[in-house]
Amino acid sequence: MRKIVVALGGNALGNTPTEQRDKVKHAAKAIVDLVNEGNEVIIAHGNGPQVGMINSAFAESHLVDTNNPEMPFPESGAMSQGYIGYHLQNAILTELKEQNLNKNVATIITQVEVDKNDPAFKKPSKPIGNFVNLETAKTLEKEKQYIMVEDANRGYRRVVPSPRPVGIVEIDIIKTLVEANHLVITVGGGGIPVVKQGNHFKGVPAVIDKDFASAKLADLLDSDLLIILTAVSKVKINFGKPNEKDLDNLTISEIDNYIANNEFSAGSMLPKVQACKMFLQGNKNRVALIASLEEAKEALLGKTGTRITGGNE
Amino acid sequence: MRKIVVALGGNALGNTPTEQRDKVKHAAKAIVDLVNEGNEVIIAHGNGPQVGMINSAFAESHLVDTNNPEMPFPESGAMSQGYIGYHLQNAILTELKEQNLNKNVATIITQVEVDKNDPAFKKPSKPIGNFVNLETAKTLEKEKQYIMVEDANRGYRRVVPSPRPVGIVEIDIIKTLVEANHLVITVGGGGIPVVKQGNHFKGVPAVIDKDFASAKLADLLDSDLLIILTAVSKVKINFGKPNEKDLDNLTISEIDNYIANNEFSAGSMLPKVQACKMFLQGNKNRVALIASLEEAKEALLGKTGTRITGGNE
Repeated sequence: MRKIVVALGGNALGNTPTEQRDKVKHAAKAIVDLVNEGNEVIIAHGNGPQVGMINSAFAESHLVDTNNPEMPFPESGAMSQGYIGYHLQNAILTELKEQNLNKNVATIITQVEVDKNDPAFKKPSKPIGNFVNLETAKTLEKEKQYIMVEDANRGYRRVVPSPRPVGIVEIDIIKTLVEANHLVITVGGGGIPVVKQGNHFKGVPAVIDKDFASAKLADLLDSDLLIILTAVSKVKINFGKPNEKDLDNLTISEIDNYIANNEFSAGSMLPKVQACKMFLQGNKNRVALIASLEEAKEALLGKTGTRITGGNE
Repeated sequence: MRKIVVALGGNALGNTPTEQRDKVKHAAKAIVDLVNEGNEVIIAHGNGPQVGMINSAFAESHLVDTNNPEMPFPESGAMSQGYIGYHLQNAILTELKEQNLNKNVATIITQVEVDKNDPAFKKPSKPIGNFVNLETAKTLEKEKQYIMVEDANRGYRRVVPSPRPVGIVEIDIIKTLVEANHLVITVGGGGIPVVKQGNHFKGVPAVIDKDFASAKLADLLDSDLLIILTAVSKVKINFGKPNEKDLDNLTISEIDNYIANNEFSAGSMLPKVQACKMFLQGNKNRVALIASLEEAKEALLGKTGTRITGGNE
């Protein structure tokens, strides 16, 4: 039996409740297939479109009537964990029953600790929320101390820091459930980012990359395998060039070389391969897989996906 | 060591994230005081104002731009569990550390099963969301098949069914965590209401009373004690009359008599005493307490609150 952390992309979950209710079925199938082959599975997921939708709904409601509160980012993230987690656990339970597996599944609202001295706090880089015009951007910078950046002719967007995860506050809860053979959905959207202040964990407006949070989770659970499910079948090099190439295998030292050659784009493949590297470095027997949601089962059987090893290098 | 389910009222948690972040500290203090006296504590809570706020924010955002989705009631409830649960678990963890207690706490996104033949589905009674005028009410009835009722000159509101809980989908997860001595926050807002359809649990637009859901939880966990924390110190009879009286003790047979005499109002004390009765009937040694949030500790010591017994009658 292998212990596997599966990280699902938020983009694969759709933009409305109706879409999400439909799309989680594919994710549930992929996950329960892994369970049915005797694996212990822990589920992590992104929340980019969903947390944006929640944050924007409150912002718009506040514009209509200032008595309606705006929703800060940590609280919007907590809502997204409930919203996505409910649909995922509901669909996974149905699929477990369809496959005659007598198991339980639940979502844990999860806080992920970040370091208040993380350099990311000095250099916010993660765009969130709606595009606004220059005038609104200036008002937000002045009134709310938001940092706004222009994005390729589409207008201005708020950017927040994307610090690295250093710990998972609810890890003991997660371990208890995994040891009892339950399925757990956790670190949704990378987790609610919190910093330690004495006895208190304070929520901060930031976004933890879900791939790094998943790698931290897989590391703390000492998983055998981290599977990052995305929209593409394999990691590519020379992307978009005549010599574009799919990679079946990848090692940590190759990752370093490819990163030095700017092979991976910052917003998509770079954090995934970096997260895999972080996970692999914890134990030489670990394996990471990057594959498409539809081909998760085949990737696990070695038929597709990019298999990453080399923690022993 | 006693096993105690504590049910917190949603009204005690405030109407904005800032208010809630402050108010959960009182609830956390009351809960951790119970833990510190050696009790095993499971936390349930209401979500009336919060789920209304979430549902309304999406409704208003949809009015501004129909590309923004409206949020159905089950999904709004799931969001409220994440939102309230995050603040509660965050504040409880801080208070545990303040009191030097080495324990963990987390929120479980929880679905509660209701019977699709529950008579409540034929007679929606629970008002939710904003007040609207007659014209909007008629449009909503026509376009969305909402049932709208007039509310004492304040306008029209949607009403949804309030069916009784018959089961808690994630009960095995909750039991595992309670047995491992973790604190669990569950059945938030009475739980996300679902009905069984073959292998699937389908979310339904309804509101499960949080007191009934808490009683069901306490029953399934075979708790010793159910504490319903509310805004008043004790259950009263002859409410608002010259002979108004606080009750220190109450038995099931007295509850039945008082209900027959219309002593308890439908929207507030009636479901609380009915929920206590339901819990007590499961085992003759059980005790229920109705007390104020501020006096939880004193009520447990028998100094205040209304103590309800009589499961053996």
